[in-house]
Amino acid sequence: MKRFKITVGFDGTHYCGWQVQPSDVTVQGRLEAVLFRLNGERVKVHGSGRTDQGVHARGQVAHFDLEKPFTTVALMRAMNALLPEDVRIMRVEEAHASFHSRKLAKDKEYRYFIWNSATMPPTDRLHCLHVPQHLDIEAMRQAAAVLEGLHDFAAFTSVPRGGFKGSTIRLLHELKVRKDGKRIVIVARGEGFLYRMVRCLTGWLLRVGKGEVDASETESVLESCIRTARVPTAPPQGLFLWNVRYR
Amino acid sequence: MKRFKITVGFDGTHYCGWQVQPSDVTVQGRLEAVLFRLNGERVKVHGSGRTDQGVHARGQVAHFDLEKPFTTVALMRAMNALLPEDVRIMRVEEAHASFHSRKLAKDKEYRYFIWNSATMPPTDRLHCLHVPQHLDIEAMRQAAAVLEGLHDFAAFTSVPRGGFKGSTIRLLHELKVRKDGKRIVIVARGEGFLYRMVRCLTGWLLRVGKGEVDASETESVLESCIRTARVPTAPPQGLFLWNVRYR
Repeated sequence: MKRFKITVGFDGTHYCGWQVQPSDVTVQGRLEAVLFRLNGERVKVHGSGRTDQGVHARGQVAHFDLEKPFTTVALMRAMNALLPEDVRIMRVEEAHASFHSRKLAKDKEYRYFIWNSATMPPTDRLHCLHVPQHLDIEAMRQAAAVLEGLHDFAAFTSVPRGGFKGSTIRLLHELKVRKDGKRIVIVARGEGFLYRMVRCLTGWLLRVGKGEVDASETESVLESCIRTARVPTAPPQGLFLWNVRYR
Repeated sequence: MKRFKITVGFDGTHYCGWQVQPSDVTVQGRLEAVLFRLNGERVKVHGSGRTDQGVHARGQVAHFDLEKPFTTVALMRAMNALLPEDVRIMRVEEAHASFHSRKLAKDKEYRYFIWNSATMPPTDRLHCLHVPQHLDIEAMRQAAAVLEGLHDFAAFTSVPRGGFKGSTIRLLHELKVRKDGKRIVIVARGEGFLYRMVRCLTGWLLRVGKGEVDASETESVLESCIRTARVPTAPPQGLFLWNVRYR
């Protein structure tokens, strides 16, 4: 038995997210179906975390154990040959039997892509949010700076089905707003993220950028620890799980 | 009657190219169908040129005449409301009655996108060519420099149905190979292009980059003025008609 660590890229457009669902097409489900064919026995794929319906990934990390003795090169080739073209295995590594994609993750980076102009090139429509209104980037950066660090992010998450499990305190290493012409990228890097946290942070930064709220209000929203309609959830298609780093 | 100049972006994935075909879905056909609804009478849309099946556009330019007195803002909004989301009107301008999108074009720029790494992020798969082999960028740049300028490009075109019409001499202002990490962009700007010329130029540059042929052979291929299997046609999905400039 060998443990493998894989890095997965996927176009989330046609998936009901990462995690296996009884009756929906998911990325984890696709991977497990392919590995079943290769291994001859059921394989459980453990991801570093879930992603929502419509969210993409450049570097989701997962692990699993195989009975059959594959080399990393052969396994990558076989998986990519059997997977649909909107899911790609970007990298395969052999891992120690104690490796765990979720428990040992040191930090994760998400990127949210925004096209800020009257019209958006249609080739970007599935992987970028179109915001035609003027965005005040400096105000967004001020608000983002307030959100970096160790905070209770209860005001920036959706309550998952079944309610919160555990703390809503997270360490957000970095929340940056980059601008490259009409393309704006929000980079969020942290030790862990709450359910829909990046989309909530993005939703708030966009309200600040549009001038609907003032950057200086960020602190009071954060300190309220209550999610209200003041913090909208940005749509999924602009969001990418960019990479996961390990100790 | 008013003449309008429009700038059109489209995702060519699901289209049989630009030009109206009797039984296929084309971008020109979509535009004419929408304008028929808005104008109440048939409208002929004149593009700056054709694009092949599967090729995309960021800035195709076209013109047409409308009976109804639309403002540019209202026309853009109405067209985008009726068009499918893979075709977007990026800009609408009123044009002089003598404006002609093809005849008055000064130059055109095409860009061909290549992802040069073992695996390609799946969100790029419809708008980028995946080349896993190592590419020698310097050799590609040497070959590209030979191709810039005024030449007979008969060796770098497909013979269109019905044979060549007129000269195969074209002025290629610029053929540059840019590299940004794993993304390579071939920029081709010229007064006019032959049928499939950019895809043929790209096909040749890729052979040079892979080391299948030497950059120094470019001159003899160009001077042969005969298209052979030595010059492959690169696939359409990496190609964008980037913009068209006017006098």
